[in-house]
Amino acid sequence: MSELDLQQFNVGIDLALEAKELAESAGKGPIPGVLSEVSEDGGITITRLEVTTEEGSRIMGKMMGNYVTFEVPELRKQDTGLQDRVATKLAQEFANFLERIGVGKTANVLIVGLGNWNVTPDALGPIVVENALVTRHFFELMPNEVAPGYRNVSAVAPGVLGITGIESSDIVQGIVDRSKPDLIIAIDALASKALERVNTTIQIADTGIHPGSGIGNKRRGITKEILGVPVVAIGVPTVLYASTIVSNSIDLMREHLKKHANQADGFMGLLDSIDENERLQLVREALGPLGHDLLVTPKDIDQFIEDIANIVASGLNAALHEAVDKTNVSAYTH
Amino acid sequence: MSELDLQQFNVGIDLALEAKELAESAGKGPIPGVLSEVSEDGGITITRLEVTTEEGSRIMGKMMGNYVTFEVPELRKQDTGLQDRVATKLAQEFANFLERIGVGKTANVLIVGLGNWNVTPDALGPIVVENALVTRHFFELMPNEVAPGYRNVSAVAPGVLGITGIESSDIVQGIVDRSKPDLIIAIDALASKALERVNTTIQIADTGIHPGSGIGNKRRGITKEILGVPVVAIGVPTVLYASTIVSNSIDLMREHLKKHANQADGFMGLLDSIDENERLQLVREALGPLGHDLLVTPKDIDQFIEDIANIVASGLNAALHEAVDKTNVSAYTH
Amino acid sequence: MSELDLQQFNVGIDLALEAKELAESAGKGPIPGVLSEVSEDGGITITRLEVTTEEGSRIMGKMMGNYVTFEVPELRKQDTGLQDRVATKLAQEFANFLERIGVGKTANVLIVGLGNWNVTPDALGPIVVENALVTRHFFELMPNEVAPGYRNVSAVAPGVLGITGIESSDIVQGIVDRSKPDLIIAIDALASKALERVNTTIQIADTGIHPGSGIGNKRRGITKEILGVPVVAIGVPTVLYASTIVSNSIDLMREHLKKHANQADGFMGLLDSIDENERLQLVREALGPLGHDLLVTPKDIDQFIEDIANIVASGLNAALHEAVDKTNVSAYTH
Amino acid sequence: MSELDLQQFNVGIDLALEAKELAESAGKGPIPGVLSEVSEDGGITITRLEVTTEEGSRIMGKMMGNYVTFEVPELRKQDTGLQDRVATKLAQEFANFLERIGVGKTANVLIVGLGNWNVTPDALGPIVVENALVTRHFFELMPNEVAPGYRNVSAVAPGVLGITGIESSDIVQGIVDRSKPDLIIAIDALASKALERVNTTIQIADTGIHPGSGIGNKRRGITKEILGVPVVAIGVPTVLYASTIVSNSIDLMREHLKKHANQADGFMGLLDSIDENERLQLVREALGPLGHDLLVTPKDIDQFIEDIANIVASGLNAALHEAVDKTNVSAYTH
Repeated sequence: MSELDLQQFNVGIDLALEAKELAESAGKGPIPGVLSEVSEDGGITITRLEVTTEEGSRIMGKMMGNYVTFEVPELRKQDTGLQDRVATKLAQEFANFLERIGVGKTANVLIVGLGNWNVTPDALGPIVVENALVTRHFFELMPNEVAPGYRNVSAVAPGVLGITGIESSDIVQGIVDRSKPDLIIAIDALASKALERVNTTIQIADTGIHPGSGIGNKRRGITKEILGVPVVAIGVPTVLYASTIVSNSIDLMREHLKKHANQADGFMGLLDSIDENERLQLVREALGPLGHDLLVTPKDIDQFIEDIANIVASGLNAALHEAVDKTNVSAYTH
Repeated sequence: MSELDLQQFNVGIDLALEAKELAESAGKGPIPGVLSEVSEDGGITITRLEVTTEEGSRIMGKMMGNYVTFEVPELRKQDTGLQDRVATKLAQEFANFLERIGVGKTANVLIVGLGNWNVTPDALGPIVVENALVTRHFFELMPNEVAPGYRNVSAVAPGVLGITGIESSDIVQGIVDRSKPDLIIAIDALASKALERVNTTIQIADTGIHPGSGIGNKRRGITKEILGVPVVAIGVPTVLYASTIVSNSIDLMREHLKKHANQADGFMGLLDSIDENERLQLVREALGPLGHDLLVTPKDIDQFIEDIANIVASGLNAALHEAVDKTNVSAYTH
Repeated sequence: MSELDLQQFNVGIDLALEAKELAESAGKGPIPGVLSEVSEDGGITITRLEVTTEEGSRIMGKMMGNYVTFEVPELRKQDTGLQDRVATKLAQEFANFLERIGVGKTANVLIVGLGNWNVTPDALGPIVVENALVTRHFFELMPNEVAPGYRNVSAVAPGVLGITGIESSDIVQGIVDRSKPDLIIAIDALASKALERVNTTIQIADTGIHPGSGIGNKRRGITKEILGVPVVAIGVPTVLYASTIVSNSIDLMREHLKKHANQADGFMGLLDSIDENERLQLVREALGPLGHDLLVTPKDIDQFIEDIANIVASGLNAALHEAVDKTNVSAYTH
Repeated sequence: MSELDLQQFNVGIDLALEAKELAESAGKGPIPGVLSEVSEDGGITITRLEVTTEEGSRIMGKMMGNYVTFEVPELRKQDTGLQDRVATKLAQEFANFLERIGVGKTANVLIVGLGNWNVTPDALGPIVVENALVTRHFFELMPNEVAPGYRNVSAVAPGVLGITGIESSDIVQGIVDRSKPDLIIAIDALASKALERVNTTIQIADTGIHPGSGIGNKRRGITKEILGVPVVAIGVPTVLYASTIVSNSIDLMREHLKKHANQADGFMGLLDSIDENERLQLVREALGPLGHDLLVTPKDIDQFIEDIANIVASGLNAALHEAVDKTNVSAYTH
């Protein structure tokens, strides 16, 4: 499979971490132009990826830029102690991220919660918006009375194309034109290849949000090129790719067929002749029309989406407002 | 009480019908410059009010313009037959209303659902948006393939100031600038003085939405003057004024005290010396700070808000798109 | 594959219609001891199945008894006219069903809504309970004042084992012991093999509810044998079997591989050597542990579950209470 | 006003603390037979009341027994640090409470969540049930494998009379007969006279739940006398009495009228001749039929009900299971 094919294939992979894994397994080794660094602390694994060259971008199928991923496998256990630690770490990491990409401490911020509040796994963005600590109206109405340590923050949930008839990107553009933020933080629900990453992973990226990513279908991106304002994207996988189920089943079927050696020969031979990436691509093509209408979710999705949205909101609130106590970040969500 | 006082008082009354009742009871008779016409059919009472002069507007405390009110006391019984009839009549009346105020059949429409989708009685607007038949994206993406009989309709729920930090009016302005509609239809949840009107009444007005009306606090209107596009407002009372409770209780206390004639003399004398309007105004003043944080709702609000939102959406869909079968209007909500 | 194997396999198939299709495709023809009759009217297909012999039951993998299935492919279009027709037909069919199995017009009924109100696709039962026209309290408190044409109906949603720690069957048993109904009507969300059946199909059966059926895991049945009271089950498929996705993908992959004839030979040969049933069984085995935690739902599930629950409730209300107008059945849901 | 009158009046007051305040203000002093003790720590005020004599019970209008009240005015600020402290303190206090009334550490517990999950302010009980750590099914299915430190706990939400047609008390009785708990913990949403107590106060009482208390109308109690098992009630006020609004308004009106001294004389004289209790009673009578259908809630009720339910659930989980870490109690809600 050529690099070009891989790029086309990977374009749809939401998590940079998974795109890297796939590309490495296909390319049998590290990808040139992609720097990565991993740290682990108390059950929270943070991976910092930087795609520094066009070649790396082409191979990995992700835009050049910075990607930070939090993986917290225990996050589904609803331990509020752990949740608070994650929110605190997220606040620190996000503050550093903003500094690294040159966003100042007084830059005005517009938080954009993408997705559909009526489809549970797509409601992440709107829920974060609800819990964001917004202050823009205070700066507008009584600028001299805003306590020090708060910056100008606003937040909107533009809805999805099927409900509004208007591209999210256009709605955001209109609001940007009126409210003049210096930075957009766009929140979106993603898909993952691994069940264990669903609702336990948070990705920060400075590449904006590109058409076709996330659960909803976007035709126009939410990027600096389009909006004229830098865009940092925060994503959480809340659904599985249907292809994951198919792929897992085929693996298990293969195991099963091994017991009937004579039957399995042809099958295994065939399967072995197709590498994992190609197989996934076939499944994705096959599921295309069907997959568009289906969501594969953990049974407990309704219970966890709110938790992870609160962690993201708490982390943002503490990262954006210096006045928010960094040691008890969740005290300020509403 | 002077006319000026009355106007100040009535400014907060959402329903033109109630403003007229109050003004008439205070003024002991019909209001000059206010035309009204009532028709009844099968449990649906339609009142068409027109405030034609500045004097009438001042006395009634409502803007000059056209107001149409549907009253359907049985609407809470959840008879889908009745619901369909109301939606059908609403479609006809709304189509006539648009014609009367000069909106053409191909005018592009932006539906704006005001309110907070997380506060049940304030969720009317967002629910109507969800159920509106939007087509703008089809006109944009494949203009030659849109079936005849559909017009260009889009719909947004801009959120409330406390959540977004941006005035709804500003968000709508930004979206109007980008999407260039010819008409805005703004949906808002209102307050009523009468329990029996809650969730059973629909008001259409061509006056737009003014600061301070509806459940949420607006500081800037959604009007033709501000947005440069005509605005038709559709409102449904979903909460009671807290003053209604107080007023009803005082009436009942007075009845009670009558039985102890000697005690009641002073009280009744005093109460009789204050006319109904003045008393209401006192109560509103008194409740001011408290009332702001309180909602008085029927116990069954969660169950009915969805029904009436569907009626409004069905009526709008049939009024706006000629292709929608006017005899089965609710077939097109989603 | 032996009949015995098939039975084991089919035990998990919720819809009798799908069990019959599978058994017929495996057995190459009609199943002995299974009577069936199909009628169609205005987009509503009604199939009446009767499994009359133990042989038929064994082959089909479903209990002996009566099964009536409504299939209404257009039901997702949210046409309230069609919804009302389905509810009306359901009322008639259900009334006939009760008569056929010997339930009298004054028999006291307990409606049991199985499932978890917090997991959207599993919330069917609890939503039907909410919308059932219950009267038992009126019969208890003022027996002489209940209008003629109503029977004694009560309704409970017992919750699921993971939330309560008590088998639904035990909770129902306790309530039956206290409230002494003559008949139980149990509502449950099912799984289907076909996307087009999800939220468009209703199954009535006089066989009760058996361990392992429905979305939730039951370990003890809700049957006449256990509760001492006849149990009619009403089920609606609201999720897909994950195996459906796998199976569809494999079919599509096969198509794809045909284009590369030399590659596909072994694969196709192998796939052809496994018949559809065996393949499905393999997939189910393979998905076992994974599938348990996953739900595959149409994206629009949140919007449709309420509609179909209302249809079921409306149909039940009209079937159970003679006083409910059979021509406008949905007027009585609340 | 005689003691008898007061008792009739207070019967409807849900919070023992408010009943005591009212009785003391009426009786001009402490109530005989009522012991009370107050402690404060870090924003959490705990009041332990014991009604030890029939005279005290008659005067206060509350059953003889133990009442513990948590008041945490800052609880609405959604500081998860404070929430965790409250849950932790609640766990300790509740464990002590059980010990004090003689409930052993291995007693089997059934948690009963009263109320209607579809009416936001009445959903407290069902939400606590969802978040309770239930173990009964493990004890039933694999008794030898339950880790030490867990006791046998189950949990049910029986629904409300208007939905089920069966008294909650009867449903609970049936479940008690089948599942044989040693103790019932009943959770219920209450009404308060003070806005600042709504969603910030938790009451524990060993008196069970009596007809007419809470938001829903109960006709039969959930008490040891009826069920044969001790009942501890946990209540949280989530709505205001409508009479509170009326009473507050009248006070404010009085202030207003003072400015027009000649007008106010009669009114004030009259108001002064009615003491606070009598006035409240009048208002309650007056509002009787109206109040029954109305809920007066803070605007933010939807956001806070979940928080306080989680606190109650976390506190219960830690109090009931020794294995639950008392220093991080919220780690075990799901």
